[in-house]
Amino acid sequence: MNSLPAAVRIREEGPRDGWQNIDEPFIPTSVKLQLIERLIDAGIQHISVTSLVSPKWVPQLADADVLLGQLRRRADVTYEVLVPNQRGLDRLLPLISAGAAVDEVGVVVSASEAHNRANLNRSIAETLSEIGGMAPRLGEHGLGLVASVATSFGCSLSGAVPPSDVGELVRTLTSMGAREIVLGDTTGMASPRQVTDVVDAIGAVPSDVTITMHFHDTRGAGLANILMSLQLGICSFETSYGELGGCQFARGATGNVATESLVSMLNGMGIYTGIEIGTLIDVVHQTELALGCAIPSKLASAGEVQWVQEEV
Amino acid sequence: MNSLPAAVRIREEGPRDGWQNIDEPFIPTSVKLQLIERLIDAGIQHISVTSLVSPKWVPQLADADVLLGQLRRRADVTYEVLVPNQRGLDRLLPLISAGAAVDEVGVVVSASEAHNRANLNRSIAETLSEIGGMAPRLGEHGLGLVASVATSFGCSLSGAVPPSDVGELVRTLTSMGAREIVLGDTTGMASPRQVTDVVDAIGAVPSDVTITMHFHDTRGAGLANILMSLQLGICSFETSYGELGGCQFARGATGNVATESLVSMLNGMGIYTGIEIGTLIDVVHQTELALGCAIPSKLASAGEVQWVQEEV
Repeated sequence: MNSLPAAVRIREEGPRDGWQNIDEPFIPTSVKLQLIERLIDAGIQHISVTSLVSPKWVPQLADADVLLGQLRRRADVTYEVLVPNQRGLDRLLPLISAGAAVDEVGVVVSASEAHNRANLNRSIAETLSEIGGMAPRLGEHGLGLVASVATSFGCSLSGAVPPSDVGELVRTLTSMGAREIVLGDTTGMASPRQVTDVVDAIGAVPSDVTITMHFHDTRGAGLANILMSLQLGICSFETSYGELGGCQFARGATGNVATESLVSMLNGMGIYTGIEIGTLIDVVHQTELALGCAIPSKLASAGEVQWVQEEV
Repeated sequence: MNSLPAAVRIREEGPRDGWQNIDEPFIPTSVKLQLIERLIDAGIQHISVTSLVSPKWVPQLADADVLLGQLRRRADVTYEVLVPNQRGLDRLLPLISAGAAVDEVGVVVSASEAHNRANLNRSIAETLSEIGGMAPRLGEHGLGLVASVATSFGCSLSGAVPPSDVGELVRTLTSMGAREIVLGDTTGMASPRQVTDVVDAIGAVPSDVTITMHFHDTRGAGLANILMSLQLGICSFETSYGELGGCQFARGATGNVATESLVSMLNGMGIYTGIEIGTLIDVVHQTELALGCAIPSKLASAGEVQWVQEEV
């Protein structure tokens, strides 16, 4: 087994991938900004804050432009925003010129043709062409390109996804200028063996490219897949506090791995994240207040592991 | 990394560890027997069926004697019953003499003194003495001895548990005649690193002794701990269908790893269990009917992974 990494980087996906699945109630922009600040208080340094998609499709993120304009710039925090296409970039760039504190732009393409069409209403080739057109515009504005490959480990619409297809997409996206590739287990179908197969198929990437894993806990194997990834040398992950998130276009694709569960496991393994579980659980409770409903966070229910000393 | 095992043995703990936490409604003995049969239909070959404890403490298992008397003997199934003490054994042996289809007796001792007292109202030394007195009686009746070490990975009452204490208990129990040792993560505190530490501390065991792991998914790391165990050569696990179970005497100790989640991960890894997820999900739904409430099984919600072919 490879030696495990000493530290892990976590991108918090709750404000984007988590909240976008909650149509009602609409969380006011000011509350969103407060929750983002509290996530940063918990030690989050990488955060996906919103998505520049049509409000028709994702009503919860209809305030994306306003929110981006009000984000507080912080030297210790990297803000990412999902921008699915050139039209979204047309919305973003004036905000950037006006000083919006965005560092990175996320784009998405699926490894499964069926999922790409369901999610983006276009082919994989058309999506890659769109990303190819966006990349130089991002470069001109000093924005990093984070490219997600959805359904990297299988698709509930079309079944198995050949790892070689994922490898090919990674090479294409890297050549377009992506400095981070996110492999998404969009439908929660991954097993540790597939993680190995996909990482093998990707092979070596340029030294300035980060491979990030994004697992769902749909069938309970989220942290097992992360453990396998750690053993393969991966040390960057996307998770959502409170186990929020999913994908409305893929059956059974509910629930990202919870940030607090990952941090709990990594604490137990002596792997540094810089993230404080107690504060993260506070954000879960604050979000419950904002939503008016319970969030099924295991850590919020069970509590942080306490290595108390026995009082005799 | 060690090569992974080709097959894994799973002991289904639902009927004992799962149901015992449900005080109301009482599941009629005939329904319990039907559910056990359905679990066997799903491919379960090792099953913990009930517990000979005081009905005062565990009302749901008050029908243990009746149930044991009506179990259908099957050549392909090993039935285990938990017997905490000599008094429980006094109840069991006449049933055995009358032909009850029990193969193994489970006993429990905690690696944490505080948990042992909370759970059994006696010291670890007293519990070991009790087990030492039971062992020859089991041998006389051809019953196998399965010894569980609760809180092997930490205790919510007393904190960290030294792996060397677990190793010492394993040696003691083996010398008493236990041919299977179950290491219980009673409070869901284990991380993959602790799994490694505890397995290291146990060292070599006699070739006829099986080490079984029993993890809870309290903080989401259940399957990650199982993956780590597999990599360390462990190929026997206890789980509960529907993620039922827990421990009423340890804070936050809810939820065994779900049998169906483990089988799903192992299927994805090409590791044989002989267990059919679809039938197991049926048992979850039948149990929901019997209980009149929902069971939060991820697999029952998300469905089995379907490696369908894309229809173009």
